[in-house]
Amino acid sequence: MAQAGVDAFLVTQHVDLYYFTGSMQAGYAFIPTVGDPVFYVRRSLERAVKESAVRIEPMGSLRGFRARLAGGHPAVFAGKGAGQVVVATEMDVLPAAAHARLADALGGSPGCSLTDGSALVRGVRTVKSAWEIGRIEAAASVAAEALEAALPVLKEGVAELELMARLEYEMRIRGHIGLMRTRSYNMEIVTGMLGSGEAAAVPSAFDGPAGGLGLGPALPQSASRRTVRRDEPILIDIGCCIDGYVIDQTRTAVIGALPQDLAAAYAEAERIIRHAERLMAPGTAPDAIYAASLADADAAGLADHFMGHGVNQVKFLGHGIGLEVDEWPVLARGFGQPLEPGMVLAVEPKFTFPGRGVVGIENSYLITGAGCRQLTKSPEGLIVL
Amino acid sequence: MAQAGVDAFLVTQHVDLYYFTGSMQAGYAFIPTVGDPVFYVRRSLERAVKESAVRIEPMGSLRGFRARLAGGHPAVFAGKGAGQVVVATEMDVLPAAAHARLADALGGSPGCSLTDGSALVRGVRTVKSAWEIGRIEAAASVAAEALEAALPVLKEGVAELELMARLEYEMRIRGHIGLMRTRSYNMEIVTGMLGSGEAAAVPSAFDGPAGGLGLGPALPQSASRRTVRRDEPILIDIGCCIDGYVIDQTRTAVIGALPQDLAAAYAEAERIIRHAERLMAPGTAPDAIYAASLADADAAGLADHFMGHGVNQVKFLGHGIGLEVDEWPVLARGFGQPLEPGMVLAVEPKFTFPGRGVVGIENSYLITGAGCRQLTKSPEGLIVL
Repeated sequence: MAQAGVDAFLVTQHVDLYYFTGSMQAGYAFIPTVGDPVFYVRRSLERAVKESAVRIEPMGSLRGFRARLAGGHPAVFAGKGAGQVVVATEMDVLPAAAHARLADALGGSPGCSLTDGSALVRGVRTVKSAWEIGRIEAAASVAAEALEAALPVLKEGVAELELMARLEYEMRIRGHIGLMRTRSYNMEIVTGMLGSGEAAAVPSAFDGPAGGLGLGPALPQSASRRTVRRDEPILIDIGCCIDGYVIDQTRTAVIGALPQDLAAAYAEAERIIRHAERLMAPGTAPDAIYAASLADADAAGLADHFMGHGVNQVKFLGHGIGLEVDEWPVLARGFGQPLEPGMVLAVEPKFTFPGRGVVGIENSYLITGAGCRQLTKSPEGLIVL
Repeated sequence: MAQAGVDAFLVTQHVDLYYFTGSMQAGYAFIPTVGDPVFYVRRSLERAVKESAVRIEPMGSLRGFRARLAGGHPAVFAGKGAGQVVVATEMDVLPAAAHARLADALGGSPGCSLTDGSALVRGVRTVKSAWEIGRIEAAASVAAEALEAALPVLKEGVAELELMARLEYEMRIRGHIGLMRTRSYNMEIVTGMLGSGEAAAVPSAFDGPAGGLGLGPALPQSASRRTVRRDEPILIDIGCCIDGYVIDQTRTAVIGALPQDLAAAYAEAERIIRHAERLMAPGTAPDAIYAASLADADAAGLADHFMGHGVNQVKFLGHGIGLEVDEWPVLARGFGQPLEPGMVLAVEPKFTFPGRGVVGIENSYLITGAGCRQLTKSPEGLIVL
């Protein structure tokens, strides 16, 4: 924060509040560069006190908030005039109207000017603590158990939706919070993306290699009412969320056998993930791993099918996971800052064949001191039923 | 829009895009006061063309968007200089950073200045079409069927989470999209609020009369791992979403019998909803209905328990529903504009007893030409098991 010329961070988003205070009760957490943080809580105050190790104060009115901050953090406000306290906040998620109200309330003298601290938050959240890694591993266990428990439902003629509902039930009773949180505007993930045959290859607004028919224009992605058939790929890209932390994984199943070219593409996806595993280590740049996967897909003659097809190809191989599914770093162009121990990434090489289906695999990995360690617990390989 | 001095509306949020175009593919819909709307789509273009009756154009780059708009809507831009085209957008949901990028891209001459159109969108969406009402009724049927199908799970010793998981499964296989969309920043609803005994009465950040223990600080509301006991209220406030439209309903259940004072409070909740039904009609102000409910609760000696307890009381009796759970109008102070035919409202009188539980009822209603019609299909009355 000091490097970024910021005097304090004002945390507004519930997920960031949980990250920084241990509680997602409603309010604002003020984290100064100098001095102790305070979580100003609107509701529930008693619950925030129980959940958080950070000092809790009642929020009071927004109108009086500037005075409260100035009084509570004299080292930050001392000698400052109008707008001279530089306060970063999450402009990537905070709505424009709420931002404007906040900027207005914190103006005056001494007062704050708000600046975008999204990159600060996203950056600090990339490296996970041992406790966070444990939560992601717990989520990986639940996803693996749920997949095993739900697989008997996967028979010829079953609707994609029915399989998805069963997977969700199996994860939910094991503690899945029922949400997969995302940070991007308008991005929704309901458990993941489950799709069979040509339905999986239908593109969508979702920024992923597979779209899915979905349940209509009001949920135009993932599982539909289409029934599963023999000899077609069934993409099971699911995740769950335990104590706020998500896992993301993909397995490909088939009832019978895949056509030869799709089986070959699936094998290539496994080769690409093995290659990524060899590359993932502290010091490697995410964009280099993405470039390697593009070269692999090209060498296999599958460049046109890699991570989507045609204009609907997406430009990444993997993404950070943690409290949200769309975390940093992204294995994509423009992400040149080297990997660090503690980062957790979902790597998802997939091949899309319009009119036929999507095949691929996705595992989540922890970057360790020496390389990486797989967190996904489901057995690998094509699931042949 | 013309009354508000707005030349065009730029729709950015996926739910609003679905409302105005029939598609929630990624992009921006430009709806001018004069001339035809165009949905500029980033992805998937082919899917937007299939789903929408509005003219679809490829979005292109954000940098070139102003020129595209000016070229495509000459009647709007003719004779206008820098920032003279007033464009409303949803500043209540559009993140501040995205808003700033958009404002920057649409500046120049002729160019746009962005203004907050949240109230315009929320206002126009209050009155539902016959098709929308049909979708809400479909959701009501699914919720009623799911409650009936899941009730056998509700036995002494079952965990709240297990009952919730079963309810979700039963709704999901019937077409629930798996999400309950909300408009408010940081507001999340996972199917609703299910809670038993004292767990239901634990307050939360959620702006509702009942909080719930939840699954920990990362999901501090609704169902927990607490097991259900005899002779305590079990609040089942659930909803589902069919084709984008939600229903919201609450029933109270008990295994055995409620303590006399809680049974009396439940009966009072039913009296309050009957009173609201008599009041709900075109021309009645929402705040008058809220005031009547406060007076009823007060007359029954239950003012302290109405819609939460103590500092955690919430200040409403009901809320609009539709594509989102937190729609307008709200049955609350400050909502003085009279009800109109086509509005749909969830009315939820509840009484909270800290350490003991929450009792109440919630139905959803359509405002008709003469009064109101109940959309909720689950049988009324305390569910005694």
